[in-house]
Amino acid sequence: MRRDITGTTVAFIVTDGFEDSELTRPWEAVTEAGGTPVLLAPEAGTVTGKNGHEQTVDRVVADASAGDFDALVLPGGVVNADHLRLHEPAVGFAREIFAQHKPAGVICHGAWLLVEADVVDDRTMTSYPSLRTDLVNAGANWVDEEVVVDAGFVTSRTPDDLPAFCAKVVEEIREGAHERQHA
Amino acid sequence: MRRDITGTTVAFIVTDGFEDSELTRPWEAVTEAGGTPVLLAPEAGTVTGKNGHEQTVDRVVADASAGDFDALVLPGGVVNADHLRLHEPAVGFAREIFAQHKPAGVICHGAWLLVEADVVDDRTMTSYPSLRTDLVNAGANWVDEEVVVDAGFVTSRTPDDLPAFCAKVVEEIREGAHERQHA
Repeated sequence: MRRDITGTTVAFIVTDGFEDSELTRPWEAVTEAGGTPVLLAPEAGTVTGKNGHEQTVDRVVADASAGDFDALVLPGGVVNADHLRLHEPAVGFAREIFAQHKPAGVICHGAWLLVEADVVDDRTMTSYPSLRTDLVNAGANWVDEEVVVDAGFVTSRTPDDLPAFCAKVVEEIREGAHERQHA
Repeated sequence: MRRDITGTTVAFIVTDGFEDSELTRPWEAVTEAGGTPVLLAPEAGTVTGKNGHEQTVDRVVADASAGDFDALVLPGGVVNADHLRLHEPAVGFAREIFAQHKPAGVICHGAWLLVEADVVDDRTMTSYPSLRTDLVNAGANWVDEEVVVDAGFVTSRTPDDLPAFCAKVVEEIREGAHERQHA
C-alpha cells in the first residue's frame, strides 16, 4: 500500500466488546498508509475486544473534537455497537464528521451509531445483515456487497470483507472531504 | 399469584446469549400461574444464557405453529436478539402471534424481532434504551416506563423491571386475545 495519507489523523471509536479484527486491521491499514490512528472511547484506560485484543485509549471521546480529525472509522461487534449508540458524545462526534463532509468507514454492527446520529437517510450502504431493517427504516438504501462507497462513506458487512474495506477506507481518506458526505 | 392461566400454552423463543433472568423469571411466573411454558429455539438441544443458565429446547421454532400457542414471551440479551432477528421462522412465528391477536410479552432487546416482523407500527411500548430509535423508526410510540401494556402487548426495559413485567404478562394471558393486538 502506498504511504499516501501521510499527515492525516483518523479517529477510531470503540468500547468493550468490539470485533477485534475490525479495529486492528483498519488501524494497521491507516498506519501503513502513513496516517495517524487515534483511539477514542467513552472512558480512559483500555478497551477489550470480544476476542481479547486490549488497546490503550488515546482520548476520551467527550474530550475530542471532530474538527481535529480527518476521518472516522467505526468497527463493529454487537456489544460494542449496542453500548456506543447510547453514548451521546460518540453520537455527536459521528454526526459532526458527516457534517464536515469527512470520510467515514463503518463495518458490521458499527452502523447503529449512525442510526442514532441520523446521518444514513438516502445513503447507499451495507452492514451486518441484522442491521438491514434498522438502516432501511432510518432511510438508507441498503445493499448486500462486500464494500460500498457513497461519497466518502465506506461500509462493509463482516470481518471477511476487511481487505476490500481497508483499501477503500484508505482511498477515501486520501481523497479527503466529499461534498455529498453530509449530516 | 393466582393459578389463573391453567390450560394455556406459552411460547418462549430464545437462542444462545439471552439475558438469563428474562427467560427464567417469566417462565416461573407462567408456571406458577398454572400455564405451560414451551421453549422454542432455532436448533434442537440446549440454549445457554449470557450468564450460564442452560435449558433444554422443547421444540425447534421452524416446526412450531403459532396456532398451537396462547401467547408469546421474548426475553432479551443483545446477542440473543441480534441472532434471532435473522432467523426467519422466529420472525414469522412472532408476526403470526400478533396476527392472531394473542398476548405477547417482550423485554429488553427482545423487541428487535418485532422490528423484523413489522408489527410495532403505531404501538405504544418500551424496550432497552438502545432500541428506542430503531423502534421509533419502525413506527412505535416509545415510552420510558417499567412496564407498558398496549392491548395485550406487554413490554419492559431491563431485568430490574421483571416483577412488573411478569405480573402484567400473566394478566394479559389471563385476559386472552385482544382485538387491537394485530400484525
